[in-house]
Amino acid sequence: MRNALLRCKSCGANYDARTPTFRCECGEPLDLVWDGGEGAAEKRTDRAIFFPFEEGEWVSLGEGNTPLVSVKDFADELGLADVQVKNESANPTWSFKDRGTAACVAHARALGFSRIGTVSTGNMAASVAAYGAAAGMEAVILVKGDTDEEKMAPVAIYGPTLLRVEGAYDKLYKESIRLGAELGIYFMNSDVPFRVAGSRTIAFEIAEQRGFSVPDWVVVPTSAGGNLRGIINGFEDLLSAGLTDRMPRFLCAQAQGCSPIVAAFDAGEERIKPFESPHTIAHAIENPFPPSGNRVLAELRRYGGVALGAKEKEIVKAQKHMARQGFFGQPASCVPLACLRNAREEGLVAEGSTAVLIMTGSGLKYTAAFQAHKLKWKDCKLKELAEKMR
Amino acid sequence: MRNALLRCKSCGANYDARTPTFRCECGEPLDLVWDGGEGAAEKRTDRAIFFPFEEGEWVSLGEGNTPLVSVKDFADELGLADVQVKNESANPTWSFKDRGTAACVAHARALGFSRIGTVSTGNMAASVAAYGAAAGMEAVILVKGDTDEEKMAPVAIYGPTLLRVEGAYDKLYKESIRLGAELGIYFMNSDVPFRVAGSRTIAFEIAEQRGFSVPDWVVVPTSAGGNLRGIINGFEDLLSAGLTDRMPRFLCAQAQGCSPIVAAFDAGEERIKPFESPHTIAHAIENPFPPSGNRVLAELRRYGGVALGAKEKEIVKAQKHMARQGFFGQPASCVPLACLRNAREEGLVAEGSTAVLIMTGSGLKYTAAFQAHKLKWKDCKLKELAEKMR
Repeated sequence: MRNALLRCKSCGANYDARTPTFRCECGEPLDLVWDGGEGAAEKRTDRAIFFPFEEGEWVSLGEGNTPLVSVKDFADELGLADVQVKNESANPTWSFKDRGTAACVAHARALGFSRIGTVSTGNMAASVAAYGAAAGMEAVILVKGDTDEEKMAPVAIYGPTLLRVEGAYDKLYKESIRLGAELGIYFMNSDVPFRVAGSRTIAFEIAEQRGFSVPDWVVVPTSAGGNLRGIINGFEDLLSAGLTDRMPRFLCAQAQGCSPIVAAFDAGEERIKPFESPHTIAHAIENPFPPSGNRVLAELRRYGGVALGAKEKEIVKAQKHMARQGFFGQPASCVPLACLRNAREEGLVAEGSTAVLIMTGSGLKYTAAFQAHKLKWKDCKLKELAEKMR
Repeated sequence: MRNALLRCKSCGANYDARTPTFRCECGEPLDLVWDGGEGAAEKRTDRAIFFPFEEGEWVSLGEGNTPLVSVKDFADELGLADVQVKNESANPTWSFKDRGTAACVAHARALGFSRIGTVSTGNMAASVAAYGAAAGMEAVILVKGDTDEEKMAPVAIYGPTLLRVEGAYDKLYKESIRLGAELGIYFMNSDVPFRVAGSRTIAFEIAEQRGFSVPDWVVVPTSAGGNLRGIINGFEDLLSAGLTDRMPRFLCAQAQGCSPIVAAFDAGEERIKPFESPHTIAHAIENPFPPSGNRVLAELRRYGGVALGAKEKEIVKAQKHMARQGFFGQPASCVPLACLRNAREEGLVAEGSTAVLIMTGSGLKYTAAFQAHKLKWKDCKLKELAEKMR
């Protein structure tokens, strides 16, 4: 691994990236500072420019390089010049998490760890289990005590050490970090520096796929806040490198049923508060006290962004409308469309703007959501087929 | 649409590709003949070189450009120089079917159809429903009368006309073709010419991703036979264009529980026979009388290929071993690894060879397969966590 820094954008402290440092002493999260290093232009692979790792440290399952597709119907409906879907379900474990997991695994390998871990019941659990398997590292996956078998199996298939832990979830999160440090397990939770660094590649790809023309808006489903932070960092890196000429504005999209960042944004606060009694169909973004929440608030304000919520009905409607354009995303992935609609209604996004929606994961991940839809089919006999098809 | 031919490799007959022709009058399937047309080198997009369509005829959800990943453990275990997984689950509806569906939709649009259809309960149904939605065309999806809700919902979400038809499956297939012609519905079933033409892009990508070095073996899960035919056509196109210097050999991988091509290959027959009482966990390749079976037999012999089966236990074991390298494929997708193992044991594939396994679809597509695995996890209390993680 090459020499690089982790910087706290809040208090300005710097740390050596070649150490297992997961958070600033001030309590805020850390961002990788990396400009490609010496001789970046002659490097063999793009990845060597994006991350301070040596060739052999990276274990790839083919993460990234996901499609960016314009949806004319959305643009027409919303009065926008272009609405594009960045389909992160086309990743090896069918969610954006693979980008950050790959970066964390490289970091863990560079630092000599042989065990990795995470606390998650969904996309991150499957991703860490898969990359642990690929890297030949033991993956310790901790899930809540009430997690049902349907959610365990798609993680267990990769062969991790899978522990279902009785007790409060926030305590489990903290205890995992403490035990990880004690037992030498690299816990790659939601907003650790290299997971966030992995999300930068979403920005790099969007820019490249658009011929380095920056969209007016990037709309990101937001839970812990790490993915949005990474995408912002990526656009900052592009601007610093002179590849783009401006920053996009960011729409932090949350479910109203769990919207601590929206609440703080609307109240003009600088710090988020825990969201009481969170409940939403968009389980993948149901974090009531996002560890990167304060940082996200600051970044939104810096770049003229907004935070908006979507009602449950609006999320279900957006999931249907995404599918009716060929994109079947899990409910959390459809919150951006719902929030963009709300932003247009409130006049926050100007007519004729361009927007990119981040579709974070596959609809196959959360089949319980089917129950929210009135799905239709007809039964018939073979001899009735002609009549039914007419 | 530009001028191109559909050719029957069996009897040599040619047809105008700008007509809705789905099969040769001799009964055998047809292949697209297309060399990129005039001025191929100056075309704007790769796709314009691959297919005889005009720019506006293609509706893309971002199909293709899937990862090709070397798995060292498989190479080491099998005594091969390199084993690579072509992960087709990284497609918009998480299977290889999207490539052929996109090509068929472009063909249907070029010919002026406003309705498309297919007969399928799995990958193809979801793919055609999604592309129908994206193209604003009505998609008529016909499924068997005993298909359960779990399989209907991931298709219904895209909003097709979904009909569950009581009656024999083979009759349903034939009746759909007849009614499609009568009612003006473009039925893009398993081995129609443009679906097969779509699969050529798998070969194009494999070649490009390997720096135009052709692997010794390409291993393809085979049901109707269309995907294998398309991949063979693609490698033929590459060779004709002078981009590669030889053909790979092909391993037609079937489940022993439904292996009509293997049976005919072993018996030295030129024509396949219907397979009696098919039964396998690899449902996605459970076609007892593959419509491209005769053609596949001829192609295998032409290029020194083989057809091999895998037992149910071997398929389950291969699914586990794929997942333990980070690739969770549906059972059919894991048949290639099982068959490659058998081919090595039988001495059909030489030590030190290179092989590419086609992983056709996501493991999330068929969760019933979890029951075949002894998936493990432990329950514990928060205070026991340190002990369990040690």
